[in-house]
Amino acid sequence: MKLLKGNIVFAPRLGELTAIERGALLLSDGGTILDVCKCVPEGCDAEVFDYGDALIMPSFADMHLHAPQYPMLGMGMDLPLLDWLNAYTFKTEARFADTDYARGVYRKLARELIAQGTTRVCMFSSLHTDATLVLMEELERAGVTGFVGKVNMDRNSGAVLRESTQESMRETLRWLDGCASFAHVRPILTPRFPPSCTDELMAWLGKLAGERGLSVQSHLSENEREIALVRELHPDCAQYWETYNKYGLWKDHTIMAHCVHSDARERAAIRRANVVAVHCPDSNVNLCSGVAPVRAMLREGLWVALGSDIAGGALLAMNRVVGAAIRASKLRQIQTDGADEFLTVAEGYYLASTAGHRYFGAGEGFVPGDALHAIVVDDRAFAESTRPLSLRERFERSIYLLDKTTIRAVWSDGRRVVG
Amino acid sequence: MKLLKGNIVFAPRLGELTAIERGALLLSDGGTILDVCKCVPEGCDAEVFDYGDALIMPSFADMHLHAPQYPMLGMGMDLPLLDWLNAYTFKTEARFADTDYARGVYRKLARELIAQGTTRVCMFSSLHTDATLVLMEELERAGVTGFVGKVNMDRNSGAVLRESTQESMRETLRWLDGCASFAHVRPILTPRFPPSCTDELMAWLGKLAGERGLSVQSHLSENEREIALVRELHPDCAQYWETYNKYGLWKDHTIMAHCVHSDARERAAIRRANVVAVHCPDSNVNLCSGVAPVRAMLREGLWVALGSDIAGGALLAMNRVVGAAIRASKLRQIQTDGADEFLTVAEGYYLASTAGHRYFGAGEGFVPGDALHAIVVDDRAFAESTRPLSLRERFERSIYLLDKTTIRAVWSDGRRVVG
Repeated sequence: MKLLKGNIVFAPRLGELTAIERGALLLSDGGTILDVCKCVPEGCDAEVFDYGDALIMPSFADMHLHAPQYPMLGMGMDLPLLDWLNAYTFKTEARFADTDYARGVYRKLARELIAQGTTRVCMFSSLHTDATLVLMEELERAGVTGFVGKVNMDRNSGAVLRESTQESMRETLRWLDGCASFAHVRPILTPRFPPSCTDELMAWLGKLAGERGLSVQSHLSENEREIALVRELHPDCAQYWETYNKYGLWKDHTIMAHCVHSDARERAAIRRANVVAVHCPDSNVNLCSGVAPVRAMLREGLWVALGSDIAGGALLAMNRVVGAAIRASKLRQIQTDGADEFLTVAEGYYLASTAGHRYFGAGEGFVPGDALHAIVVDDRAFAESTRPLSLRERFERSIYLLDKTTIRAVWSDGRRVVG
Repeated sequence: MKLLKGNIVFAPRLGELTAIERGALLLSDGGTILDVCKCVPEGCDAEVFDYGDALIMPSFADMHLHAPQYPMLGMGMDLPLLDWLNAYTFKTEARFADTDYARGVYRKLARELIAQGTTRVCMFSSLHTDATLVLMEELERAGVTGFVGKVNMDRNSGAVLRESTQESMRETLRWLDGCASFAHVRPILTPRFPPSCTDELMAWLGKLAGERGLSVQSHLSENEREIALVRELHPDCAQYWETYNKYGLWKDHTIMAHCVHSDARERAAIRRANVVAVHCPDSNVNLCSGVAPVRAMLREGLWVALGSDIAGGALLAMNRVVGAAIRASKLRQIQTDGADEFLTVAEGYYLASTAGHRYFGAGEGFVPGDALHAIVVDDRAFAESTRPLSLRERFERSIYLLDKTTIRAVWSDGRRVVG
């Protein structure tokens, strides 16, 4: 067995925080949580990881990001969505035809994710099958777990990034065959968004998802120009979500990034289907898309998680995405004259941890039976306080201030991958 | 002489960026800029600092921050302004009666400012004279230059942080006497804000400012509740700014932080007097104050600079405050249906550098005759790009991504203080 000693903090449910001073986590040899202990058990025969006064918290789950956009992080931020796609994104992604290039970028990204405390992802690759397999290898190697999708896009992608409908189908099958060898990273079907996929391809993907029991991730109602384009391409659909629904892609555990402009009817469709709305606050602000109605979604019982959405988002570190979500929610509170109350730090952290981990079957925070996904935060580097801080205060300060230099250890799927 | 070799980038005027690939800065022995060179001069007899392919850019000027709030950075962010002041701020500041405690915090803060590339500040201390002198010593020692103010507050500050009117006057004079020994840090008069100062104290400070030729810094129109309180306390003043004007505190080079709710009339008063409006976007969002009408201010010709406003702001690094200003401006663009266009990255950087340095008499970017204030950014740690980047792209990426680990050197007032 293994025993991790430290201050235990997790967000079991939205708005709730469990804080156990000088507690412990008891793990099996394989890294499954056996017990969350209010005080350190004595005399048990376990390998001890004594983190002293540090905070042991669930790691982050980044539920939407584009791996091949990592090289353009922090660039092109003065452009709106569709211009940004054409001027930067598609050209950058096109480079991933070169698997050697892909290897270098993806190795760096995977290590950076882990160093920043992100142990679970739902990630877009590019359309390239081989580079996608390289990405999955590098995630596995670094200790990142979750879902990765080869992107499907057989129209409207410009000259540099193109696959025919037949190629897209054939390569999707070849990619799925190649995924069998991975233990911690699994495939998820990934039509880029309706403007990039022909109806034929969408229908084929929906059928494949059903036959093979695969999940689906895509984008929804991000931006007004994009929504208008979808409406033009699918005049039979009253709302954006219906373009997925008509091809069997709108189902339990489908991941939909953004949902900035999802109105009450679209939100009801999200809730009914148990679709996950992934809020990407930094990206939505950077690209002037707007601020998603997160408070309304939560009030209505939707499943909301958080995504960095790099490189529309310029923040890879999920604690900073929590900060972005809180800040965006405060502006939305002002804008709605207080009707949509802002996200508290405990709520923001819940969205970035528990709500995401749940996608992979995990329970509410640290729960016996789950493989451990955790970060250990050493907050001694922050300025000396004027008085002893409560564990809740230390938690809040950590969310606002931590960076990879203050993350002392990272555990992913029961394995210690940093520290 | 000294010769700094590298890629030179600066923002001479709002929206303009000068980018010189493989250029150089020629300095006098004392660190005054003699020439900004398009190519490296040959055969000159100078000590060479070869920064290779790194970026040499003007350092940051943080035109509004509260030094004694550094210990509470990233805490209490779920509270609105006046509650936050009472629950956290006043109690934290009260601790600075202890100069030994102050020494430790201020040494850490001063070093952190320099490490993050901030070489000029306009800073609030607490009301404590001795701790303020300690702060000035520690800034000098670390290489931070600029203005520091002992705070005046003789009413409405609660039980823990209080000075009588007479004490406030006496201690202000004692503090000014103690400032004579500093070479790089000078005093600025600092009435906290009208609710914290009696009319008698305000009048005395206005008179002192005039007699001694001292500048003034304070807060203006941050938050609706605060504005209502000021109106109640000064029924003779139609607008917030008039409460300063009536006591001679509203004058050329007066620093006014926030100006979130300054309407066209108040903005015109700011412009007429050559008052500096310091935009503190992170603080204003964190405390739900709103987003200042920065685009309108710039259009109308106001002098706008940037402040971290820690610890209302949770970001000490000014490149991240630039990011906050850009993001806030994008939300304001959305809110105003495009009437207030967002700040570009070049504009945001201008506000955080040139617009602030100007307060201290500096010219438009790197200009012969000015003492060098610069950071050297090594961007090799960022992800490998898909193609060679332009210097402008590297500049943008640096503003979004740099942290102290990528700041290779810092020059302050002509002296090399890091690297």
